[in-house]
Amino acid sequence: MNELLEQVRQGQIRAIARLITQVENSPTAAEQAIQALYPHTGQAHVVGVTGSPGAGKSTVVNALVKTLRQQDVRVGIIAVDPTSPFTGGALLGDRVRMRDLSGDPGVYIRSMASRGSLGGLARATASVIKVLDAAGFDYVLVETVGAGQAEVDIANAAHTTIVIEAPGMGDEIQSIKAGILEIADILVVNKADRPGADRTVRSLKMMLHLGPVGGTRQSGRISSLATTSPNGAAWNIPVLETVATEEKGMGALAEMLAQHMAHLRQSGDWLKREKERSWREVEGLLQQRFMAQFQASVPLELRDGLLTAVAERQVDPYTAVHQLLEKSESKRKG
Amino acid sequence: MNELLEQVRQGQIRAIARLITQVENSPTAAEQAIQALYPHTGQAHVVGVTGSPGAGKSTVVNALVKTLRQQDVRVGIIAVDPTSPFTGGALLGDRVRMRDLSGDPGVYIRSMASRGSLGGLARATASVIKVLDAAGFDYVLVETVGAGQAEVDIANAAHTTIVIEAPGMGDEIQSIKAGILEIADILVVNKADRPGADRTVRSLKMMLHLGPVGGTRQSGRISSLATTSPNGAAWNIPVLETVATEEKGMGALAEMLAQHMAHLRQSGDWLKREKERSWREVEGLLQQRFMAQFQASVPLELRDGLLTAVAERQVDPYTAVHQLLEKSESKRKG
Repeated sequence: MNELLEQVRQGQIRAIARLITQVENSPTAAEQAIQALYPHTGQAHVVGVTGSPGAGKSTVVNALVKTLRQQDVRVGIIAVDPTSPFTGGALLGDRVRMRDLSGDPGVYIRSMASRGSLGGLARATASVIKVLDAAGFDYVLVETVGAGQAEVDIANAAHTTIVIEAPGMGDEIQSIKAGILEIADILVVNKADRPGADRTVRSLKMMLHLGPVGGTRQSGRISSLATTSPNGAAWNIPVLETVATEEKGMGALAEMLAQHMAHLRQSGDWLKREKERSWREVEGLLQQRFMAQFQASVPLELRDGLLTAVAERQVDPYTAVHQLLEKSESKRKG
Repeated sequence: MNELLEQVRQGQIRAIARLITQVENSPTAAEQAIQALYPHTGQAHVVGVTGSPGAGKSTVVNALVKTLRQQDVRVGIIAVDPTSPFTGGALLGDRVRMRDLSGDPGVYIRSMASRGSLGGLARATASVIKVLDAAGFDYVLVETVGAGQAEVDIANAAHTTIVIEAPGMGDEIQSIKAGILEIADILVVNKADRPGADRTVRSLKMMLHLGPVGGTRQSGRISSLATTSPNGAAWNIPVLETVATEEKGMGALAEMLAQHMAHLRQSGDWLKREKERSWREVEGLLQQRFMAQFQASVPLELRDGLLTAVAERQVDPYTAVHQLLEKSESKRKG
């Protein structure tokens, strides 16, 4: 393991791929690897990229990565979106475009299965981000589909979240947008050469203006832990226009990423977001431990019998929980 | 409380609305109410309705409810979809249609806020289902947006899950569909009078055929707890065509709901699903208790200091968890 970790620290792609597989498959390996690599993390700019299916998200990621690569930085991509070509879910055209990138030694692409438990996916993604960070990638892009809390949790692991829309997605999804706006640091209207692009830009700007803090947010996202920057500096969420298929607008997007990171550092938001992320991570691990302790202390037959009683309406769920906790406590004390 | 619960049991709409508000706002009230009402639940047919935005999900729900009402059954609707007219997110036309239903004394509509924590929403929805069940509604329809694990969890509270698609939603979302198919008991192609409907029906049938168990599922969903019906009977997932705006195909859909319930009862799947649901619910409550115990036993300053150290890479998350658990244990023993 130590040799593998050393190779990962040197940025060797094959070692990175092997370690990630180990981390995904074994919680013990994940713990060992993250403990060792953690002091070397905190260097990468973690960027969440999300948006409606059909907005051209993957094409934007692709074009953005090419632009970033011209600055001679290394980019890791984590695709947790079932519609992304990186996870193999999309059209041939996208796959071909994606292939450009995968030939580049400064780019590493990893797709994450979206099967399995929600918490499990968010946890695995957080671990993969750390591996890539410790391996020296300057940017780690996390691409998610942007609907549902699962994706929001994953995007929350990012320093900067880009939300991508496209003209003509229909009024029906306006209210979804409203939810997504809460996590956006940068808004992108892709396919900006299409009719209706101006209207989409205007409506997004209006939504920002009507939002809870009038289009500027202290922390860029609504959080239960804190709502203002330590020094009170605000970030004005920009709305950028791109045509990713022609690689238009990518310079401005890359520049805005750098500006947002500068803002996070200067405002003290960087540390605040890292604390929030740390808490989500620690909380997830605590819940895992509690459930493992609980399962070890209550016999399976007892649990199964009680669940049958709940299913048959002989015992209500709260009473079942009280009984299970009593058993668990007495076992641990006895 | 006891008088209120009695009124709820009699099906008094105003009492139901009041109790649900209490249950949503206070965990103590939820516990008290669910404990008292639980023995009276298990009668309603809980139906999850999900699908892509734009598939006409709300219009289907609306038309289906009208059809069910002709059989003189009472129907409760829980809308947890931010794009649903029931939650106020959609177009005027939908709102007008929805108004038909809200004048009907045999129909009760409740919309659930999708803000707040994911687990919280799934828990609150489970409680509202129980209140409506105990209040004597024959059907409880739960409408969700169908993307993301949050909605899957909520749909999992259902006995029967209807997934609604429409022609021409684009090939891009085929892979999303593949995910949704895993939870479907009944597939509906709405807007079946549109061009391309046949193609959509065919592609859904093909996906069912290519699925993990060849289009018939023992339990109708993939589950970690169990995969075969106690008596081995299989459910063939049907693909129905509807034109909800003209109320076409609703009789067949209502009939299929009844058939699926008969299948669940005969095959033993009903109890199996109830056990799975009970476990998810008990597990959620256990996690809540564990975190509450933990937070009571570890001083906030200690937690905050440790999180700062994690954010600054001085302590890794796993070591932080070990330290927090030690503190928590010694406090509880001491």
